[in-house]
Amino acid sequence: MARVLDGKALAAEVKNELKLEIANWVNLGHRAPSIRCILVGDDPASHTYVNNKIIAARFVGIDAEVIKHDSSITEEQLLREIETLNADSNVDGILVQLPIPETMSERKVCNAVAPEKDVDGFHIVNIGQLCVDMPTMVPATALAVIEMLKRFKIETFGRNAVVVGRSKNVGLPIAMMLHSDKKHDNGLGMDATVTICHRYTPKEKLDNFCQNADIIITATGVPKLIKANMVKPGATIIDVGITKVTDENGKSRLVGDVDYDEVSKVAGALTPVPGGVGPMTVAMLMHNTFQAAKNLRTKSALQ
Amino acid sequence: MARVLDGKALAAEVKNELKLEIANWVNLGHRAPSIRCILVGDDPASHTYVNNKIIAARFVGIDAEVIKHDSSITEEQLLREIETLNADSNVDGILVQLPIPETMSERKVCNAVAPEKDVDGFHIVNIGQLCVDMPTMVPATALAVIEMLKRFKIETFGRNAVVVGRSKNVGLPIAMMLHSDKKHDNGLGMDATVTICHRYTPKEKLDNFCQNADIIITATGVPKLIKANMVKPGATIIDVGITKVTDENGKSRLVGDVDYDEVSKVAGALTPVPGGVGPMTVAMLMHNTFQAAKNLRTKSALQ
Repeated sequence: MARVLDGKALAAEVKNELKLEIANWVNLGHRAPSIRCILVGDDPASHTYVNNKIIAARFVGIDAEVIKHDSSITEEQLLREIETLNADSNVDGILVQLPIPETMSERKVCNAVAPEKDVDGFHIVNIGQLCVDMPTMVPATALAVIEMLKRFKIETFGRNAVVVGRSKNVGLPIAMMLHSDKKHDNGLGMDATVTICHRYTPKEKLDNFCQNADIIITATGVPKLIKANMVKPGATIIDVGITKVTDENGKSRLVGDVDYDEVSKVAGALTPVPGGVGPMTVAMLMHNTFQAAKNLRTKSALQ
Repeated sequence: MARVLDGKALAAEVKNELKLEIANWVNLGHRAPSIRCILVGDDPASHTYVNNKIIAARFVGIDAEVIKHDSSITEEQLLREIETLNADSNVDGILVQLPIPETMSERKVCNAVAPEKDVDGFHIVNIGQLCVDMPTMVPATALAVIEMLKRFKIETFGRNAVVVGRSKNVGLPIAMMLHSDKKHDNGLGMDATVTICHRYTPKEKLDNFCQNADIIITATGVPKLIKANMVKPGATIIDVGITKVTDENGKSRLVGDVDYDEVSKVAGALTPVPGGVGPMTVAMLMHNTFQAAKNLRTKSALQ
């Protein structure tokens, strides 16, 4: 049976480390790192996600507040609020919970957050920096995947990795770090040979690439997309998918992209859903927020 | 025998189109688009490249000047010069010919060019925009490859493409466009399944990926890296490599990454070196410069 890559336990470990580091930081006389989460509308999943982030932030010692708006807020009002938070020297991290109402441009809103406070790593400057291996804010989910590979000691150098899903916030930054040179500036490169598959990859080709992969990262939201016959014995599988399904008894639960029970008989290591990448994403968001606080402190010390 | 994808002839076509479009633009009362090429040091290849760019620019009706410096110029002086060109409303495109002396930070210099005048597409803002499918300045070589695939009508949708080489200015942006969604904003997506191979891809894995590819884009500078036994019959091969080699008679010539004579017996279509991607790169730089001129005009009209 595949080794279970327990993201929940690892996230607890990361958060405990951060808690200690932040306590030390505050002991040195700095104010606590701070994050503001903007939440628009009443999507229940978004409310749950933001709530989890606030709980984690307070646990590690980050000052966290939610700023709630109902969905009638205009894009202009939202942009003005982001401007105010950008200018507020007591705010280190700004997060706009996605999705936002369809009347607004997600891209415009993401690019309105000051890059150095963009703890979600969605600003084009942060994406560009990631691409050229500069130190940057990395999208938390992508960073969670890389951190899991590192901490669970999954070898990536020279290995075949397949990223299934080409979303700009998840699949793309993962593919960026996986294929990049470890020796470069930001230390995030993993030196794997990377194949990016997506909705237009024909099924039999997806099967082939997966069967040939030492590492599969899947982030599609298609339940049971990755089946046992697509997995090379011993391969590592990181399941970023998270979909709410209702079973025959009318009970709903969260599932990933992987046919877990069958694949765990073949794979060497596998993340569960829930309890895999999800909790690590929250932990890495806290990491980013503390990093933003330190960067802003360094910046203001230099000015 | 493989169809020869004649980049020289295609570049002539593109430049003739641009010449006409620019003449129309000037007839409308606009000043001619303009580019300034900064050339530091005395590398003969760089001088040749810049010279080719100037000749092409003048042919299409772009006002082009070289600004030469010897290699004793400091980074600070170079940055100041770029600042001046950024602020000059008579300059549309700024190009710093790489490599620059090792005493300078290439990244810092590339990021100093105003993104809207960055006709090389190396600024992190332009890279970030490319990644999220926004309209942007695309590095000319990468754009040349995509334009060749389009104009030579090479189908990419759902096909396997391998990019050999992960350089930030060539391999990376090519992989970005090849895997992206055609339907998105900038219209550059090619919807292929893309594998990024590099120096740490083990030889037998590189062979496998290439044998499985409908399209191979190689940009490594390793002569004869791509051999006939690595190529699927009928595949398309775009050779971005360009290396000066000296033959047994002491005569030097330019070669690509592909073992041309042998591969052309197997491949369906193949670019020669020289006369393939090289001339198209220059043509696409002219395209970018004209685009910069139009963008700047639109921007100033809106202000």
